[in-house]
Amino acid sequence: MNFVENGSVTTPRGFTASGCHCGIRKNQNKKDISLIFCEKRCAAAAVYTKNLVKGAPLTVTKNNISDGYAQAVICNSGNANTCNADGVEKAELTCKKLAEKLGISENDVIVGSTGVIGQPINIEAILSGIDPLVSSLSKDGTDAAEGIMTTDTVKKSFAVEFEAGGKTAYIGGIAKGSGMINPHMATMLCFVTTDVAITPFLLHEALTFAVNKSLNMVNIDGDTSTNDMMSVMASGLAGNETITEKNADYDSFVEALCALSVKIARAIAKDGEGATKLIIASVRNCKNDDCAARLADSVVASSLVKAAMFGADANWGRVLCALGYADQDIDVNKINVSFISSAGTVDVCKNGAGIPFSEEVAKKILTCDEITIDIDLQDGDSAAEAFGCDLTYDYVKINGDYRT
Amino acid sequence: MNFVENGSVTTPRGFTASGCHCGIRKNQNKKDISLIFCEKRCAAAAVYTKNLVKGAPLTVTKNNISDGYAQAVICNSGNANTCNADGVEKAELTCKKLAEKLGISENDVIVGSTGVIGQPINIEAILSGIDPLVSSLSKDGTDAAEGIMTTDTVKKSFAVEFEAGGKTAYIGGIAKGSGMINPHMATMLCFVTTDVAITPFLLHEALTFAVNKSLNMVNIDGDTSTNDMMSVMASGLAGNETITEKNADYDSFVEALCALSVKIARAIAKDGEGATKLIIASVRNCKNDDCAARLADSVVASSLVKAAMFGADANWGRVLCALGYADQDIDVNKINVSFISSAGTVDVCKNGAGIPFSEEVAKKILTCDEITIDIDLQDGDSAAEAFGCDLTYDYVKINGDYRT
Repeated sequence: MNFVENGSVTTPRGFTASGCHCGIRKNQNKKDISLIFCEKRCAAAAVYTKNLVKGAPLTVTKNNISDGYAQAVICNSGNANTCNADGVEKAELTCKKLAEKLGISENDVIVGSTGVIGQPINIEAILSGIDPLVSSLSKDGTDAAEGIMTTDTVKKSFAVEFEAGGKTAYIGGIAKGSGMINPHMATMLCFVTTDVAITPFLLHEALTFAVNKSLNMVNIDGDTSTNDMMSVMASGLAGNETITEKNADYDSFVEALCALSVKIARAIAKDGEGATKLIIASVRNCKNDDCAARLADSVVASSLVKAAMFGADANWGRVLCALGYADQDIDVNKINVSFISSAGTVDVCKNGAGIPFSEEVAKKILTCDEITIDIDLQDGDSAAEAFGCDLTYDYVKINGDYRT
Repeated sequence: MNFVENGSVTTPRGFTASGCHCGIRKNQNKKDISLIFCEKRCAAAAVYTKNLVKGAPLTVTKNNISDGYAQAVICNSGNANTCNADGVEKAELTCKKLAEKLGISENDVIVGSTGVIGQPINIEAILSGIDPLVSSLSKDGTDAAEGIMTTDTVKKSFAVEFEAGGKTAYIGGIAKGSGMINPHMATMLCFVTTDVAITPFLLHEALTFAVNKSLNMVNIDGDTSTNDMMSVMASGLAGNETITEKNADYDSFVEALCALSVKIARAIAKDGEGATKLIIASVRNCKNDDCAARLADSVVASSLVKAAMFGADANWGRVLCALGYADQDIDVNKINVSFISSAGTVDVCKNGAGIPFSEEVAKKILTCDEITIDIDLQDGDSAAEAFGCDLTYDYVKINGDYRT
């Protein structure tokens, strides 16, 4: 399993993509709509936000891929098409018009939206984007990755290659963050493509497994969006024998999908709104997986831990505090904590109590842009990682005046 | 029931208080230790943080008042005396030395600490504070209110008067905020005194009821501290017949205690770290109390709602979003939302969808320093209020470099 340089959703065989400005956003230089298309009908699966307030596009997508198949993804940024009376109607019209243009079934379209909630979406702009999107479809995934960005500062586009049944197969993905991200959901927008041949049922199983190890472990601000979704389409063009059971090929696919998903999760966390640092809470030697995951999440979700990381302050007491209120049955008197980065490791807490350490060394370690908070519970062999970021002035700035 | 002008913990009969600088903090001008004393032994009750990581003072206090009685409160700021090997020993020594000086039982002392976690507390400083604290005890509660402050910018000190059994009785309270405050606990430090005569059992019942309507509904940053505690001591000197059952006098006491607690809760929320505004989420017409409380909390806890309030941005979609992920069974299509302040009311969402409103009027309303987010579920008759604040640059500043 390897990452592919400059990989994207177009890396797997059969897929093309495009992105353009259709007019939802005022800024003509910001692409605001994206298309991913496969030359053949794909096995498809998706996971959605757990927020009770759900974007209209999610309702339409869920209905469209209920048969396990899809052939295109269309997604706009700038407006969430949520909490509007005519949202479902407009999302359906988008699918219908796109399907006509592509010559596919309107039930094979995955539709997504991201942006402001509660303002009617400009459907004329969306529909006007269909012609340019379709005519500019290509093997370059860059425009599609850009078209779904909102407050993201870097595009998230990756691909991996792996072996399945003696054939080389690919998985590619694009995603958008970067605020309103919380683990209790399918987390933000992420569109994945693959050319492996697999049944829709197993594709969904693999997606669920991968999302729980990756995107569901990202926490930017504890807010769970109304529109988040991760979808995957599998063209089968890798030529492997279709994966119909949980065999070695399935395991290879899951491993590759997890690696891609974790890569995307880290990229989203590092590009969290206003973030200057990627913070990874790594919980080890815990009594079970769920406990480890909830502890790791509690640490990256803590505003106080996040602010301390921004200030490069080795305030491990806040880490212990966040572990303590995670509502898990743990022995706080056995917890060891260290801070780790490319500048080294500093042990700060042993068996639940502080130990002497060099503030100077700690400062150096915490000044790096990727920091792991290593938490050893000394009470089992389960582990989990959660991905977050620091809390900065810019998070406040971005969110204090986003809509107006 | 009325508020008493310039009221404090010394307003009820029998209580004196003091505060001074003992040397835990470097700044000589910042008082860092406080004492509250009653001339007679009081019925006493307390509620504590639900964090598994508990400050040593809480362990000692819990043990001391297990018999339902206390006569003094001593509390320092600047160090939490938590996650240190010898914390309990030092807290016990503090009680012992204070009791000796006051001529009371060492088991009648409530001890509290607030500040940094995991650094050994300077016990010499604490002990050196006992003499000046005791010698300066007076009916002026100001110094005691100041001695427990950390990042608070205003002192929280209030008192109410009410009638019990034909006698005028008083309740006074001091509290400290202002970060690391979350509703899943007894919330921060709050010391209450009263001269009503009541049994320890009913005092605890009343405290629990009041805290759930007030301090447990404050949410500054979702972080639950290790050291939070609210205690109440009742001297009985009001001369009412001792309240031994839930009669009309009990109801009057609970009403007054709730009013005082809500006043303190609002003051703490408004003085949240970096806050410029008090945000009240008022949930109405909900199917039950617990659901209403959890919805209200979810709204004031949302970083995105908080940042929007800072920016005076009527981004009601974030309110709906926060209601949607509160994990409650609600009908999002029946929700009405309005923003209310001294500048007026603006309705922004009706039956789960946006309605046209004047951005100019909304801006004016949201520019005030106390904002109510009114949420009507149209689905029952329960209600709850949660108290929070906006998320500002200064929150990040305060917490990015608190320890070093």
